[in-house]
Amino acid sequence: MVSIVIIGSGNVAQHLISAFLQSDEIELVQVFSRQKESVSHLISSDKIVSDFAEIKQADLYLIAVSDNAIADVSTKLPFENRLVVHTSGSMPMEILDSKNRQGVFYPLQTFTKNKPVNFKEIPICLEAEVEKDFKTIETVAKTISSVVQSISSEQRKALHVAAVFVCNFVNHLYKIGNEICEENQLSFELLKPLIIETAQKIIHLSPENAQTGPAKRNDSETINTHLNFLSDENQKEIYKLLTKSIIDDGKKL
Amino acid sequence: MVSIVIIGSGNVAQHLISAFLQSDEIELVQVFSRQKESVSHLISSDKIVSDFAEIKQADLYLIAVSDNAIADVSTKLPFENRLVVHTSGSMPMEILDSKNRQGVFYPLQTFTKNKPVNFKEIPICLEAEVEKDFKTIETVAKTISSVVQSISSEQRKALHVAAVFVCNFVNHLYKIGNEICEENQLSFELLKPLIIETAQKIIHLSPENAQTGPAKRNDSETINTHLNFLSDENQKEIYKLLTKSIIDDGKKL
Repeated sequence: MVSIVIIGSGNVAQHLISAFLQSDEIELVQVFSRQKESVSHLISSDKIVSDFAEIKQADLYLIAVSDNAIADVSTKLPFENRLVVHTSGSMPMEILDSKNRQGVFYPLQTFTKNKPVNFKEIPICLEAEVEKDFKTIETVAKTISSVVQSISSEQRKALHVAAVFVCNFVNHLYKIGNEICEENQLSFELLKPLIIETAQKIIHLSPENAQTGPAKRNDSETINTHLNFLSDENQKEIYKLLTKSIIDDGKKL
Repeated sequence: MVSIVIIGSGNVAQHLISAFLQSDEIELVQVFSRQKESVSHLISSDKIVSDFAEIKQADLYLIAVSDNAIADVSTKLPFENRLVVHTSGSMPMEILDSKNRQGVFYPLQTFTKNKPVNFKEIPICLEAEVEKDFKTIETVAKTISSVVQSISSEQRKALHVAAVFVCNFVNHLYKIGNEICEENQLSFELLKPLIIETAQKIIHLSPENAQTGPAKRNDSETINTHLNFLSDENQKEIYKLLTKSIIDDGKKL
């Protein structure tokens, strides 16, 4: 049994609370939250604290707050030489105050409020200063996920940049698709099966082999038709740059 | 019962052949293919022809060939005043030789060889010169799909451009994510759950509301860390342009 205190009440914190509550091997001791009501639907109110002085003893303190608050929160913890980890993809482990033993517990997923996720499939990337602490967070990670990996701070940074491309930037392209539909009295619903299939394709096919479209075929006639069609300068610039990038890939082969 | 001849043997043609063979309301009369062997695993060889003169009478001739071959193929058909449609997203209906009655039968999906698709969910966008012909292709479309829409050539062009953004360009971002993983000894498998969740999110959430990440938060510290991390100039340029586009969206709100 590993005892845990979660510090934070945002999306990641809430999904971790739900996941830990379902595990028999984890005792969720407390949740630290400035606004008690933001987690009161998940855990009984006597376990929610909003004063650092009230935080109890536990094997693991898990800081799930926004990136720029991690350092500050870790400094405010009123104890020393305990295991404190953060859940951020972009922050190095060393951002945590060195008065405690540092680690990282990074679930690689995009979390939406009120949308349940299947934690079993979510990769959890771990890092710890001390081997014994790594074992502790590995035990915790394995109770909720079947994909648990040791990832250095440098690798985690790479992974986070890659995640920005395949998640944040991809979603922005969905947004542009939606805009083009709206401007032409078309329902965005029409594009959804294509969006899902495009994502599912790369489960079994490398993105390189899955590439299709006018840029891949270097079909300059269709590309020019599309560029003439687009009136928004920003959309046009994105179309040009990504088309050029796909064409350049073809030349490398 | 609608009788159909399919002209072509590529991805779209093969998926349509499979779908039509499963329908009781469609009689697949023939498939025209230069290489008989490319469709011989789908349909009996006596129904495959490679000489235009051998094409039989049918209610509907469906040209599923590459965009730049459509006009030429439609000219070579040795008959007149019959219903001939193409399956392209980017070509206007009028590209078809006007000696026959024109139409468009555009299934909006990315087709992969040997990967079955569920046609029921694939939107089919229809257009026809004549009302009676529209009814015919609508009957055919409804036997294989539950999402059938009348879409003008101009709207279809918009839809095709939007599809390039949400499919071709999105896949290219997956490819860049894969590259970044490989360069840092990380498995691309780690990103797959994120890719699937990012796509599934927009089924219930608008892409605008689903947007997350450093650009959405205008988190210049993380953005600069990422730009310093990226060494490939092309990746850097794409990162900058898409980040700027997301930040500019935020300013519009």
